[in-house]
Amino acid sequence: MQGYKVSCIRCGAAAQSVLSYSCVYCGGILDVSIDVEFRPELIVGNDTSIWRYRAFYPYIREGDIITLGEGFTPIVRFKNGLFLKLDYLNPTGSFKDRGSSVLISAIRRFVDSNTFIAEDSSGNAGASIAAYAALAGIKAKIYVPETVSGLKLEQIRAYGAEVIKVKGGRTKASEEAIKAEPNKVYIGHIYHPIFRDGMRTIAYELYEQLGGKVPSAVFVPVSAGTLLLGLIKGFEHLLGSGLIDEIPLIVACQTRIVSPLYHAFKGLKYTPPKKVKTVADALVSTNPPLLELMVRKLREINGDAIIVDEEEILEAYWELASRGIFVEPSSAVAYAASKKYESIQGPKIVILTGFGLKTRIYQRSRV
Amino acid sequence: MQGYKVSCIRCGAAAQSVLSYSCVYCGGILDVSIDVEFRPELIVGNDTSIWRYRAFYPYIREGDIITLGEGFTPIVRFKNGLFLKLDYLNPTGSFKDRGSSVLISAIRRFVDSNTFIAEDSSGNAGASIAAYAALAGIKAKIYVPETVSGLKLEQIRAYGAEVIKVKGGRTKASEEAIKAEPNKVYIGHIYHPIFRDGMRTIAYELYEQLGGKVPSAVFVPVSAGTLLLGLIKGFEHLLGSGLIDEIPLIVACQTRIVSPLYHAFKGLKYTPPKKVKTVADALVSTNPPLLELMVRKLREINGDAIIVDEEEILEAYWELASRGIFVEPSSAVAYAASKKYESIQGPKIVILTGFGLKTRIYQRSRV
Repeated sequence: MQGYKVSCIRCGAAAQSVLSYSCVYCGGILDVSIDVEFRPELIVGNDTSIWRYRAFYPYIREGDIITLGEGFTPIVRFKNGLFLKLDYLNPTGSFKDRGSSVLISAIRRFVDSNTFIAEDSSGNAGASIAAYAALAGIKAKIYVPETVSGLKLEQIRAYGAEVIKVKGGRTKASEEAIKAEPNKVYIGHIYHPIFRDGMRTIAYELYEQLGGKVPSAVFVPVSAGTLLLGLIKGFEHLLGSGLIDEIPLIVACQTRIVSPLYHAFKGLKYTPPKKVKTVADALVSTNPPLLELMVRKLREINGDAIIVDEEEILEAYWELASRGIFVEPSSAVAYAASKKYESIQGPKIVILTGFGLKTRIYQRSRV
Repeated sequence: MQGYKVSCIRCGAAAQSVLSYSCVYCGGILDVSIDVEFRPELIVGNDTSIWRYRAFYPYIREGDIITLGEGFTPIVRFKNGLFLKLDYLNPTGSFKDRGSSVLISAIRRFVDSNTFIAEDSSGNAGASIAAYAALAGIKAKIYVPETVSGLKLEQIRAYGAEVIKVKGGRTKASEEAIKAEPNKVYIGHIYHPIFRDGMRTIAYELYEQLGGKVPSAVFVPVSAGTLLLGLIKGFEHLLGSGLIDEIPLIVACQTRIVSPLYHAFKGLKYTPPKKVKTVADALVSTNPPLLELMVRKLREINGDAIIVDEEEILEAYWELASRGIFVEPSSAVAYAASKKYESIQGPKIVILTGFGLKTRIYQRSRV
């Protein structure tokens, strides 16, 4: 197939296969680039999943698509000029399904029945990979930090994946997942260029759902950075194709406790706490492998980064819930952050990434 | 406004207002009828919520619409000829949002700030009404049987509604909610004609999503009966408008334990258990007020009714989960039922009504 390449952002070497999660020559980050222009007439109009954009995924064969109808999630007007993208209304309850659908569709023909895929996750990506692997008939092991909340673990297991609890936080879980083992293929979403490439779709949807207009700002919670980078790439694609005139202000939103991107972007030193404890339990990557890339891209597009406190997160969570929008606290981070940009005129977008049913439910009086 | 009427199905009297939940003259069931033909050109094509069908809701003013982007949920091909309608991907995690969005939009201008609305529910409808009431700024009290699972209660409370636990099962909760009280407006979804009328949208979506084809059969879990009756009405509307040639086989699916419709439809006597205990905890209406109407309509359209056992439900639940579809056991009832109709050629549709995150999660080894 043509129309794309996967290569190392450091040394430029081409990836060996769609299974590659990093550069075999220098260990650098791999990235997908495509040379198909975004043309609206290529959209499959009667498909209301991410696969309406299949023309812009030239590395996926039509017959390989593994889909649960992910994407094209609702966008609702919330306040003057502020829109919420309800991306928690994806098949497993989180935005990760965009990446999983694209990744599993891409790799399925290269994974045989003796092989299992290994993914490391703080919960949502694990559930998502587990679901799509199940649909594709691929065995999956999900490596999680031992702190992961009960419900997400149970969801991963419900899909039939094996859960492997790893002591020592998010980074340790990742190391354990990557470790070479017979019949194991590491496809961890924090590294894999194709998972991340699935996130482009959210930019396309915003473009379509706003009737071809560019939002003034997009607020996005950031942990490993896949959503942030995918979003930027999607808007760059629209810009490069001449469909939009500028890239919106993209604001990377983190918690004060876990804020490596914020600190790096602002040129500040970040010392993560020894033990991460935050209500935003999906945002726990204290040392994300994509950090450098995130900083570079965010600067290139004149984006911004911001942090919010725990109380601000819960206030935002309750405010959303009291208006009918029930998300996990990690998603409320982006809404809390958006309040700090009230002077910007709309349309502003807050991306809500995970369903409130996925975590412990915080009642106002009980905290 | 014109183009519709709400009247009693027994005595024919017109309803007094959109707040009426039963006939003031004879206590009979109220029903909405509209005299707007379904014409595809009236669909608002770029709206991917139920409000793409706003032309067929002549009693709702455009400015009154309270929406969270509900409806137009994915339909995915599951097996040969079998499609799943993922209606759990609605804003509160269940199909009830269709009814709530339409009901709250219809009544909001008639409910002042001193008034609260009262709803009785086994959980999902309560969460849904709570969310839409919150969005509309209306106070809500939700009356639930004391057996309702913890998560659904917490979800209702998260939206800011008051939960009132009632001893004695589903029917008692209903009686308590209906009881007259100052500043209370009962809008219970099991009676209210407008809530039920919101369910028509699912038939329209199936029609559109199958490219104008009629499915051969639709499997739907039945408790109070709102989805079943709305679905039938939607297909009748399409038929009456000349868009389809016949109504699909509609199969009402119940558990053996709670199966009043199945028994009445088959002309059998039903004696509910003293204490209802089923994994399908959203299907607990042992004595649904709409029973007679359901039997009549199901016969009129040559529908069918069937029951499944607890083990069949859990098997279906696990089978769906092991293919990436995580629903609550009550939704698995419809899938379990569909297996008893394997001789019917497709396209067959199973409507999956509630997210698996909404109930206790059953792991295969742990039951």
